[in-house]
Amino acid sequence: MAGLSVHSVLVTGANRGIGLGLVQHFLRMPKPPQWIFAGCRDPKGQRAQELQNLASKHSNIIIIPLEVSDPASIKAAAAKVGEHLGGSGLNLLINNAGLLKARTLDTETLEDMSEVYTTNTIGPLLMAQAFLPLLKKAAQGSPGSGLSCSKAAIVNISSTGGSIGALLTWNRIQATSYRCSKAALNMLSKCQSLAYKEHGILCVALHPGWVQTDLGAAAGLPPPTTVDDSVQGILKVLSSLSEKETGAFLDWEGKVIPW
Amino acid sequence: MAGLSVHSVLVTGANRGIGLGLVQHFLRMPKPPQWIFAGCRDPKGQRAQELQNLASKHSNIIIIPLEVSDPASIKAAAAKVGEHLGGSGLNLLINNAGLLKARTLDTETLEDMSEVYTTNTIGPLLMAQAFLPLLKKAAQGSPGSGLSCSKAAIVNISSTGGSIGALLTWNRIQATSYRCSKAALNMLSKCQSLAYKEHGILCVALHPGWVQTDLGAAAGLPPPTTVDDSVQGILKVLSSLSEKETGAFLDWEGKVIPW
Repeated sequence: MAGLSVHSVLVTGANRGIGLGLVQHFLRMPKPPQWIFAGCRDPKGQRAQELQNLASKHSNIIIIPLEVSDPASIKAAAAKVGEHLGGSGLNLLINNAGLLKARTLDTETLEDMSEVYTTNTIGPLLMAQAFLPLLKKAAQGSPGSGLSCSKAAIVNISSTGGSIGALLTWNRIQATSYRCSKAALNMLSKCQSLAYKEHGILCVALHPGWVQTDLGAAAGLPPPTTVDDSVQGILKVLSSLSEKETGAFLDWEGKVIPW
Repeated sequence: MAGLSVHSVLVTGANRGIGLGLVQHFLRMPKPPQWIFAGCRDPKGQRAQELQNLASKHSNIIIIPLEVSDPASIKAAAAKVGEHLGGSGLNLLINNAGLLKARTLDTETLEDMSEVYTTNTIGPLLMAQAFLPLLKKAAQGSPGSGLSCSKAAIVNISSTGGSIGALLTWNRIQATSYRCSKAALNMLSKCQSLAYKEHGILCVALHPGWVQTDLGAAAGLPPPTTVDDSVQGILKVLSSLSEKETGAFLDWEGKVIPW
């Protein structure tokens, strides 16, 4: 990960799955971030135990209570992160928190469609809005004119499930609410890349692979990729990104995915 | 329109813009539909006056009170349409009702994102679920094994604004909530095409052009295409569709749009 060197990073949904994996891999870097903000819905809950254990051993992990579907929670989180950072900016925002409901097209409901969209699509939009001042500050404080994840970036964890072009049969699962939310997240990433380029902020949508997590398992068949392989791939891809890739949709091996 | 011959059609948002134009053009066909169901949020309101006038002169127009963001309203509409049709099915469902809020990325809110998604994406999903029995019936009652709009079809009125692949600069407007909802609607159309093919139902997403309507005007610059040209184009495209095009994203001139 020679190419990726960040002073600060925020990962949402950091208490398990890919989010927790990212925190662990950031810790293992030759030069770990000075600040690893770990967003988590319920920091005191049973499902945050592993993250709590990790934070108790590493002072650069700061657990941030964060519900990405709640604007007030996001605002409070941004204020808290800003306090910790003092005058410096946030280099990397990884919108990882996500929701999957394994319904068929016939059994989708307004409530499920709405809940999944709020977490998977609206959440990343609101997060970027709230953390934009800190991301801008990081971009302004970094040397050079190009874009990179070491400077300032928004990484939206998307899915090939959100690729309309790749959907030729019902492979694995229907999960229309999830697919629609991720297609919309891909559009959001493209919009963000256009809006935030002038501020020096890189934006991408990343498919982490079909990963052995709770979410992956909820979708049905056992997923082939381990969290470690996925996260290692993601960090390698992030380290290689430049202004050429802003607005792209890539997988954890760096391959371009059709929209 | 020699190729398009439907016994029954339902158009949502039929009181103005493209919806009203579709109703007018269906009436002018050499062999007009026996039933034109015109879905409309507030049939008694000022904005439904033109539709009311039209319906008073043509007994094949049935105005159906319909709020596509309300499952109960959709259910009631499906029951009412079913009653009118007696034992026969519905050939064509045109999900035209849509909402655009001209916000910048910085000024989007949870409420606007959610409201636009509910009308533009969840609405078409719920409509298709509720009218599926009638669409199936139409497909079963039609001769031949292929798919066509004369047999049974769901047409989702989408927008190039929802094309991620075509979004290279902020052309015209940002309207992220609208873009995200239409990208998601394109995904929904693809999902519907996969799920409903076995029932003999064709599904497409159509971009009607940049049309001189209230919605078009809300987006900013004056749109170049008249409602008449758009609707004439749409009906010509619909008349030409076969199973080859199910799941496609086309414009009012029949050109394929990138996802």
